[in-house]
Amino acid sequence: MKSFCVIGLGRFGSSVVLSLVKNGHEVVAIDTDAKKIDDYKDIATHVMIADATDERVLKNVEIDKFDGVVVAIGKNVQASILTTMIVIEAGAKNVVAKATTDVQIKVLTKIGADKIIQPEKDAGERVADNLAHPDISEYLDLSDDYSFAKIVVKNIKFNGLTLFQANLTQDYHVNVAFVKKADGSASIGKHNTKIVLDDVLYVVGTKADIEKFSEII
Amino acid sequence: MKSFCVIGLGRFGSSVVLSLVKNGHEVVAIDTDAKKIDDYKDIATHVMIADATDERVLKNVEIDKFDGVVVAIGKNVQASILTTMIVIEAGAKNVVAKATTDVQIKVLTKIGADKIIQPEKDAGERVADNLAHPDISEYLDLSDDYSFAKIVVKNIKFNGLTLFQANLTQDYHVNVAFVKKADGSASIGKHNTKIVLDDVLYVVGTKADIEKFSEII
Amino acid sequence: MKSFCVIGLGRFGSSVVLSLVKNGHEVVAIDTDAKKIDDYKDIATHVMIADATDERVLKNVEIDKFDGVVVAIGKNVQASILTTMIVIEAGAKNVVAKATTDVQIKVLTKIGADKIIQPEKDAGERVADNLAHPDISEYLDLSDDYSFAKIVVKNIKFNGLTLFQANLTQDYHVNVAFVKKADGSASIGKHNTKIVLDDVLYVVGTKADIEKFSEII
Amino acid sequence: MKSFCVIGLGRFGSSVVLSLVKNGHEVVAIDTDAKKIDDYKDIATHVMIADATDERVLKNVEIDKFDGVVVAIGKNVQASILTTMIVIEAGAKNVVAKATTDVQIKVLTKIGADKIIQPEKDAGERVADNLAHPDISEYLDLSDDYSFAKIVVKNIKFNGLTLFQANLTQDYHVNVAFVKKADGSASIGKHNTKIVLDDVLYVVGTKADIEKFSEII
Amino acid sequence: MKSFCVIGLGRFGSSVVLSLVKNGHEVVAIDTDAKKIDDYKDIATHVMIADATDERVLKNVEIDKFDGVVVAIGKNVQASILTTMIVIEAGAKNVVAKATTDVQIKVLTKIGADKIIQPEKDAGERVADNLAHPDISEYLDLSDDYSFAKIVVKNIKFNGLTLFQANLTQDYHVNVAFVKKADGSASIGKHNTKIVLDDVLYVVGTKADIEKFSEII
Amino acid sequence: MKSFCVIGLGRFGSSVVLSLVKNGHEVVAIDTDAKKIDDYKDIATHVMIADATDERVLKNVEIDKFDGVVVAIGKNVQASILTTMIVIEAGAKNVVAKATTDVQIKVLTKIGADKIIQPEKDAGERVADNLAHPDISEYLDLSDDYSFAKIVVKNIKFNGLTLFQANLTQDYHVNVAFVKKADGSASIGKHNTKIVLDDVLYVVGTKADIEKFSEII
Amino acid sequence: MKSFCVIGLGRFGSSVVLSLVKNGHEVVAIDTDAKKIDDYKDIATHVMIADATDERVLKNVEIDKFDGVVVAIGKNVQASILTTMIVIEAGAKNVVAKATTDVQIKVLTKIGADKIIQPEKDAGERVADNLAHPDISEYLDLSDDYSFAKIVVKNIKFNGLTLFQANLTQDYHVNVAFVKKADGSASIGKHNTKIVLDDVLYVVGTKADIEKFSEII
Amino acid sequence: MKSFCVIGLGRFGSSVVLSLVKNGHEVVAIDTDAKKIDDYKDIATHVMIADATDERVLKNVEIDKFDGVVVAIGKNVQASILTTMIVIEAGAKNVVAKATTDVQIKVLTKIGADKIIQPEKDAGERVADNLAHPDISEYLDLSDDYSFAKIVVKNIKFNGLTLFQANLTQDYHVNVAFVKKADGSASIGKHNTKIVLDDVLYVVGTKADIEKFSEII
Repeated sequence: MKSFCVIGLGRFGSSVVLSLVKNGHEVVAIDTDAKKIDDYKDIATHVMIADATDERVLKNVEIDKFDGVVVAIGKNVQASILTTMIVIEAGAKNVVAKATTDVQIKVLTKIGADKIIQPEKDAGERVADNLAHPDISEYLDLSDDYSFAKIVVKNIKFNGLTLFQANLTQDYHVNVAFVKKADGSASIGKHNTKIVLDDVLYVVGTKADIEKFSEII
Repeated sequence: MKSFCVIGLGRFGSSVVLSLVKNGHEVVAIDTDAKKIDDYKDIATHVMIADATDERVLKNVEIDKFDGVVVAIGKNVQASILTTMIVIEAGAKNVVAKATTDVQIKVLTKIGADKIIQPEKDAGERVADNLAHPDISEYLDLSDDYSFAKIVVKNIKFNGLTLFQANLTQDYHVNVAFVKKADGSASIGKHNTKIVLDDVLYVVGTKADIEKFSEII
Repeated sequence: MKSFCVIGLGRFGSSVVLSLVKNGHEVVAIDTDAKKIDDYKDIATHVMIADATDERVLKNVEIDKFDGVVVAIGKNVQASILTTMIVIEAGAKNVVAKATTDVQIKVLTKIGADKIIQPEKDAGERVADNLAHPDISEYLDLSDDYSFAKIVVKNIKFNGLTLFQANLTQDYHVNVAFVKKADGSASIGKHNTKIVLDDVLYVVGTKADIEKFSEII
Repeated sequence: MKSFCVIGLGRFGSSVVLSLVKNGHEVVAIDTDAKKIDDYKDIATHVMIADATDERVLKNVEIDKFDGVVVAIGKNVQASILTTMIVIEAGAKNVVAKATTDVQIKVLTKIGADKIIQPEKDAGERVADNLAHPDISEYLDLSDDYSFAKIVVKNIKFNGLTLFQANLTQDYHVNVAFVKKADGSASIGKHNTKIVLDDVLYVVGTKADIEKFSEII
Repeated sequence: MKSFCVIGLGRFGSSVVLSLVKNGHEVVAIDTDAKKIDDYKDIATHVMIADATDERVLKNVEIDKFDGVVVAIGKNVQASILTTMIVIEAGAKNVVAKATTDVQIKVLTKIGADKIIQPEKDAGERVADNLAHPDISEYLDLSDDYSFAKIVVKNIKFNGLTLFQANLTQDYHVNVAFVKKADGSASIGKHNTKIVLDDVLYVVGTKADIEKFSEII
Repeated sequence: MKSFCVIGLGRFGSSVVLSLVKNGHEVVAIDTDAKKIDDYKDIATHVMIADATDERVLKNVEIDKFDGVVVAIGKNVQASILTTMIVIEAGAKNVVAKATTDVQIKVLTKIGADKIIQPEKDAGERVADNLAHPDISEYLDLSDDYSFAKIVVKNIKFNGLTLFQANLTQDYHVNVAFVKKADGSASIGKHNTKIVLDDVLYVVGTKADIEKFSEII
Repeated sequence: MKSFCVIGLGRFGSSVVLSLVKNGHEVVAIDTDAKKIDDYKDIATHVMIADATDERVLKNVEIDKFDGVVVAIGKNVQASILTTMIVIEAGAKNVVAKATTDVQIKVLTKIGADKIIQPEKDAGERVADNLAHPDISEYLDLSDDYSFAKIVVKNIKFNGLTLFQANLTQDYHVNVAFVKKADGSASIGKHNTKIVLDDVLYVVGTKADIEKFSEII
Repeated sequence: MKSFCVIGLGRFGSSVVLSLVKNGHEVVAIDTDAKKIDDYKDIATHVMIADATDERVLKNVEIDKFDGVVVAIGKNVQASILTTMIVIEAGAKNVVAKATTDVQIKVLTKIGADKIIQPEKDAGERVADNLAHPDISEYLDLSDDYSFAKIVVKNIKFNGLTLFQANLTQDYHVNVAFVKKADGSASIGKHNTKIVLDDVLYVVGTKADIEKFSEII
């Protein structure tokens, strides 16, 4: 179990809090809005109604003691930057900040944020990938060339074969990393993993190879 | 090449437009804000300053002819729902809508949206995962048990071995799906793929197995 | 005696509450505005200051136990739709929602509202009918052809005749359904109902027949 | 064909305009909002962007020449009262004004409005009636005692009888004024009108009688 | 001693209250603004924080018992008209209302206000008169022809004469109604009233006569 | 004919303009609001849309050439003070400024305004006087002791007497300065002026004398 | 120790308070904003939440007893002027007021402020001087011709010389008033003051002489 | 002659522009407000209506070519920080930024601003110094111990002496750097500079020495 501090309980921040708590971590949640704090007082380990741009606030919570701090302020760029500055000045570790523009990213980088997140931009890219590849229900870029994709087995020819028998790495240059079955069971891709119609395959390969593979499988 | 219509050019919508255009698709972008439309007039295939809650607008763009329509309206729930309704009524295919609350998701589902996205919530969950697993720089849930994770080789013991020699699937129950090297080169995980210190491995396995693997590699 | 829940105490909602209470029914009234709730605390059976878009609120009032629920929210389309969705999800019966636009009607229909009301539009149509037929003081369309109208007896020729003697159904193809007299007394239209000058007749007939009838009576 | 002037193009006013135009009348529509005027420029006979509280405006349109004037201003009570005053001062005939409160009705009456409408209140009363009488799909009060209601024939006993044979006026003290059939055909209620299951009857009677009738039919 | 009710404590209303109280009358002051009420709680006989457009308020103060009621509402025309209506409906006597436009005056007249005041307009007219007649320091129109004016004696010729000796009524057709002296003493204009240089004369006459008189005196 | 400049066209300023123009004077009207300027462009001799707190504006109109300048700015105290300062700095003569508070009066006096007007306060005092003396329809204080009042002849005893015969100055210590008759004719009060019932007398006297006089006349 | 009153706790006012307190003076701080007052309640000698345009407030603090009063109101010109007026009327000594425009300065002067400050304008002038003379790190105008400047010794030729030996007054017509050394020590400029490389000299001279001097030193 | 770019034309920025232009430098002024740009179009060398947070704007003006750039943005911290970031990223030299809070100063320092100004705080400190030392009309801190002060000669004892005769450096440990005479003439402090009553002396010394000196001179 680790402990984290999440500043800002908008949709992004509250999602961070919920996920961390669900996974058994301690979370201190800070927001200026009493109503939001009230909604999370039984979820987070500790909550505070406070303005994090007031340096005394972070001194009180001993911000440098947490395993990580998330500056989840979306409303205004100013509060995002000033809070991140104060958090870093106060010696916090693993500072994650949410950004909305490219210049803001540069400022946050300069003042020393460890990781910067752009939720809307990331989601937009993922939706664009999925729209462009309707056969591939999910798609994640691993590099400029390679992707990780989710593809359903539709070709009767592969029905009942093991991955070894199907010979997919050899023939299509893709690694079937994971197989999810209709009945909910799943396994990592191994030689003796058997695939049947409607199985969902999670494969890695170049974009071109995945595209080809998605058409024959 | 496919054609798409993106309604709303906020950060999410504009990210969708940029990604689709970058991948060579035709995109019609619609927004009520003349300034935003001006910013995208040389990027999108076609732009329109229009209020998509006005049914005549969508009639004019023949919304039913696109391969997909993204209702990327974030400002107000009302416009999001009404526009999605009009888009679906007009016969659009593959309607993706952005949502911000659970009730809104229910409404969008009832009126027939094909896919519903929650950027902030998704990003929050991903950040929570990464904070909780600092050794694993990226983390994606594939099922309740299995995840896809990005782990760096830090153990000298594995330096210079092929995946076959390292015997990772056997010993740690993970599939090394993809290997990215310090020099930028990359390949899918195959028997003869050689790994060295600081290589980045993308592996699939149960959460527990990945956790253990991340500690020994 | 039945029990109803009215959400929203604007002019429409408060009129619903007053009418139901006057007819002896139990009414629970909900509004976010403390002042409005205060005005109705001695009128409604039970009142609540609450935001009905908060799902916990409706759980508390056991919304599925009422004989009918009126979503009388006029201020914003968003709250109207979300509240109606939550009310229906919670298993409410006979859900009546107020709408202001055609698209909103479509959304409310899709999510399952039983009846949708447009006060301003309905009133406008009624006023238009009355303006166009000044001799006919009230007018209600029953179908594309037939109407229900309120006409005053001005022709001395019919003074003192029974409906049977006046032979109006035969001669003018109208049914005199109801007769209201200057002294306040009234009766349904029967054979032996006598009419005199200045009696108000409520008649049914085709629009053309009523028009003609209104000119001779 | 008559000519009318409608001041204010909110939902009530625009509904008045549409209904009057549909019935073949000339309508001059006035509003301060250029966008609304634009929406109605091809519907109304003549439109004007103007503030009707400016006395010169009404002088220009010769407000005293119309067959009726509707002051359909909902936004503020002040504009409603001042406009009605100016309209009446200018000699207009048949002035109909929309009101929202009881005091406003008193003021409008004192300054001489011919008819005053309260859309929300009227609609609320109608909804309350319908909720209280679910078997009776529509309900209109004709006096304190008598109503006009819409009831479906559900009792096999009356299937195929003429109104004369069914003897409803005698037995239940109601006048069946109008009958609408499943196939869309309709007629006024006469002796030889035959009713079958699922026919919709429009009846007049005292509330008690209608209630009883709705239970046996 | 009389009793009055003043509704609205803006500059006009508070001036009415102060003047009435200074002259020994009982005054009930009503305003919606707690701060204003607080400022007058030791000045007025009785104060109330209340919205006078709420009919119950005036019922409570027995508005019909006062010797006069001043509706000193300046902020919005709506509140001015509705309050005046309610005050009159409640049987108040001597209702004085403040107005700002000509149409508002017509409405207030129609609903029965006894006296209507336009402070800004009246003051403007008085300033205009004074600017146009700099020799005459104050000026009040008594009819289209006659005025009441304040003029200083500057001509040595009249120094030390009685009004009888000065023969002003005869020679200049003005009535010297009042004489104020430099030492603060004053008297009405009588035969034996003596005038000296720098005395201030209050005279009545036609405008032309006063103009001429102001040049010779 | 003289020339004046009026800055600000609110109700006070526009009343000044109208009165001055009606009396044949030249008026330059200045306001920041284009709509107001438009309303007065055919009334004032010259109009300007300009912000008088911009010193260049007053330089252009040669503010020092006018016979008087009225700073009729009501909206904000700041603009009132700054404009008056600039006007005086620019050498204007007879500067009249409108004030709303006592401190503002002190500031305006210090910076050199020639006359300061408080319309609402003045009107309030006049209304208070009239309410307190209902028999005396108008009332103007001339000094702490003396007033000028308007009183109707109601006592048959004085009907048909000349002022000499009535002996009012002697008996009641009042000067009847002006007499207005029911037929509209009027004259200054002279020995041979005859008064009849319902004549309106404008008298000067001490408050106590006027009070007594108003009860017997 | 002296005592001062500072009205307004914006950045300027709070800087005045902090500096005065740091130097051991008594300070009463007044602001309308409870939050600001709270921030200074442990810093100032006495604090008050009050509106200084309310004359009673200043009466209570005995404003005429202070050694000086600072009207540090920046938000609105009106409050600045009215407060300064009230402060002066109440007999305050050494009244310093902050101004933002030239007209405001004239008004504040007329009503009697002892000193008027324009922070933004002064700072702008100083920055402009520094930008224009990058070798001279600080610059202060003493008269139209003479300045006070801060210059670093960069010329090896002067290294180790006393001011007398360097003969700067003679050769360059500048007075080296103060010398600050790299080790933090400092002294006024005297004959035997020794200068070395990187010493900072504060010199007085004509602008031209300083310019020349800055190039050779 | 040098060239500068000033971003933001508030009171601080416009003061920078005016001072630079007055001293003969080229200045490009940028602001988003067309009105402000219009006011400076004949003063600055070049003006631009532009939002400096748009990176394309600064590319167009070749921001790296100026001798200095002033980010004079006061309205919001966000624009201040983002603009400074963009300016620095674009390679600008001598970047001066205005700050309002301590955290903002830290951020601006981190992202690389060369100089940071706080006008209100600086002015506040200066006013505090002057209030505390009324005999010393101006006061500037040179170090923690030493100050530069402006003191008037009031002691007849020094009248007519040269600085050498007065022996001030010896006796009071102050350097009289500059002397300004009543007739406007001035000179740097030299041995033979003669001082008389009412001369203004600019002296450097420790605070304690200056305090003592100000009491005897």
